[in-house]
Amino acid sequence: MLNFLYDIPTKVYFGEGEIKHLGEALKEYGKRVLLVYGGGSIKRTGIYDRVTACLKEAGLFWAECGGVEPNPRIETVRRGIALCKKEQIDVVLAVGGGSSIDCAKVIAAGANSAYDAWELVKDKTKIESVLPVIAVLTLAATGSEMDAGAVISNPETMEKLGVANPGMAPKYAFMDPTYTYSVSPFQTAAGTADIMSHTIESYFQKETGNDLTDTFAEGILKTCVKYGPIAVAEPKNYTARANLMWAGSWAINNLLKYGKGNGWSCHPMEHELSAYYDMTHGLGLAILTPHWMRYILSEETLDRFVSFGVEVFGIDRTLPKMEIAHRGIDALAAFFRSLGLVSTLKEAGVGEEHLEAMAEHAAKLMKNPYVALSKEDILKIYRAAL
Amino acid sequence: MLNFLYDIPTKVYFGEGEIKHLGEALKEYGKRVLLVYGGGSIKRTGIYDRVTACLKEAGLFWAECGGVEPNPRIETVRRGIALCKKEQIDVVLAVGGGSSIDCAKVIAAGANSAYDAWELVKDKTKIESVLPVIAVLTLAATGSEMDAGAVISNPETMEKLGVANPGMAPKYAFMDPTYTYSVSPFQTAAGTADIMSHTIESYFQKETGNDLTDTFAEGILKTCVKYGPIAVAEPKNYTARANLMWAGSWAINNLLKYGKGNGWSCHPMEHELSAYYDMTHGLGLAILTPHWMRYILSEETLDRFVSFGVEVFGIDRTLPKMEIAHRGIDALAAFFRSLGLVSTLKEAGVGEEHLEAMAEHAAKLMKNPYVALSKEDILKIYRAAL
Repeated sequence: MLNFLYDIPTKVYFGEGEIKHLGEALKEYGKRVLLVYGGGSIKRTGIYDRVTACLKEAGLFWAECGGVEPNPRIETVRRGIALCKKEQIDVVLAVGGGSSIDCAKVIAAGANSAYDAWELVKDKTKIESVLPVIAVLTLAATGSEMDAGAVISNPETMEKLGVANPGMAPKYAFMDPTYTYSVSPFQTAAGTADIMSHTIESYFQKETGNDLTDTFAEGILKTCVKYGPIAVAEPKNYTARANLMWAGSWAINNLLKYGKGNGWSCHPMEHELSAYYDMTHGLGLAILTPHWMRYILSEETLDRFVSFGVEVFGIDRTLPKMEIAHRGIDALAAFFRSLGLVSTLKEAGVGEEHLEAMAEHAAKLMKNPYVALSKEDILKIYRAAL
Repeated sequence: MLNFLYDIPTKVYFGEGEIKHLGEALKEYGKRVLLVYGGGSIKRTGIYDRVTACLKEAGLFWAECGGVEPNPRIETVRRGIALCKKEQIDVVLAVGGGSSIDCAKVIAAGANSAYDAWELVKDKTKIESVLPVIAVLTLAATGSEMDAGAVISNPETMEKLGVANPGMAPKYAFMDPTYTYSVSPFQTAAGTADIMSHTIESYFQKETGNDLTDTFAEGILKTCVKYGPIAVAEPKNYTARANLMWAGSWAINNLLKYGKGNGWSCHPMEHELSAYYDMTHGLGLAILTPHWMRYILSEETLDRFVSFGVEVFGIDRTLPKMEIAHRGIDALAAFFRSLGLVSTLKEAGVGEEHLEAMAEHAAKLMKNPYVALSKEDILKIYRAAL
């Protein structure tokens, strides 16, 4: 187990109706709020009305930065930063899924900065002060509500990059499972895949001996396997929505990373799909992950796959190890299909045209992953997934 | 799942040698430190020297409140408070196990209070300001290093009471698994039982539907079952000590309680044993828990016991449910014995003499437990455990 500094500062109001504490939480940090949200679904669902009612009741000023894209773009971040400067914003309030929250975090990082926002994304050491961020979550997926990271796309350069700073971790997250009732079956499935991928990335690491964390990862995966299908079939099942929502935070709030390395494999490969095809992140992960698993399965990685198969999918532990491993991977692929997700890149609209460039870039982004992958390795995984 | 406010503010430096950050952590909170510790084992192990070297290097003043008892007593708390007032202490540094940390927390709560310390323990609403607490952990057991509670004994009134205040949660905890290498096999076993009992108390609650948390609880229990015996047999096994240490914090830092009730069963019964016989807390819990389980096992509680047996001890899930439940309880009792702990109250020096009074008091302390227990029920559990 590696040494680490545990630090998860976000406070979470969890449960139906907890939005009532939003005004007091915001007022801890100031009086002038920038409200950041996406394409307007929060207006259809009534969440916008509930949030702005809290702002009014608390006597807070707010400006709005709506229209954040599913893969949030740097020009939207720049628009938010300009609003912060113009309106002397004290606190940035994101209402939405990971896109709105990620966008809000980088807006907060740029509000007091002389650098262009893309400079901050490319080089996090340029981030100096960060406005406080508060998140109201409406989609269980990215875990952005409880971590310090953000992913931003730049269509001009075809890049999708991650950036993190401790100050970007939300001060408060509001998680009301009923706010996810309106999430479509497809987005629910993709979100579940995203949560599972975060967990799998941390579970498959070179460092061993952190058994406690491994059991937590297995627990998150089992919870997704149990409740993902229920949430897809019964969108208003509170227990399913609540478990997925809480699992989404714990999959990536850093607990699973402490004491382990942090080299991810499928995310760098998927970020290329989102950058080139604007693909839903969780769908890309669901397609790639089983193929990545099959590619890296070997005598060296076998024991980890055995644990995965036995603990997550209940594969009979008395079977030959290699059979357990294959059955586990097959079970994962079948699970994603059972959620209604397509299982090939072609079905998701991806052709051969950019695979070379994508593989080259993904290889550069991949830092110390579980099994080292060259551009050629990644290309083989993309092709297997076609 | 019940609504909750998640708030675990303690930062943790985890791993061998992380004590090097102690000086900078203390200096965030002031220059005058009260060093709280137990019976002197930290002097024999060299931990005292390492801690005071950090204090010297950081240029900090310190006063000392040593001699904290295994079940910390109110008069020791009073002595610490007097020192805080006399020496104008800024920050309270506990070095030890749960006893020293609990004592330090209540000292911190009383340092600026006009009330007598026992008044604060009896009525937490009287706690106003709390000095910052920093903990250096030397025993994996109580989880006090990452929670906001403390348990203090008053020999005059034969009471042992818990008290909690958000301000009492340590600002930093330093967890170096090598600091627990010198913990005796008996204390290692008792600590393991304590960790498991905290987990079991939260696992057996009336509220259902918090599956994610249940999987975490099962993971903590499995980790204890795997590493408890290794730590007893190989005191310097880093991986075993590290897993137990981290498990100890997560068993009781509140994560397992969120979304559930908080009515505990075995702890109120055990506190009487510690109060009357100064029994090691973890030993009392190890003796009582299997008897409590057998007493409350019924058709109504059966499903929870089935999950416990299958997930924690790997009992064959195809067996009849009641058989799984009994096998799981037997496995827990056998596990505690395998750690070298005695399994009856008589072997631990307890006779019939105080059982009535203990049962009466425990019944009063028990608030909304998993299965309601009257004085007569508790007496039966004590007698079964004799």
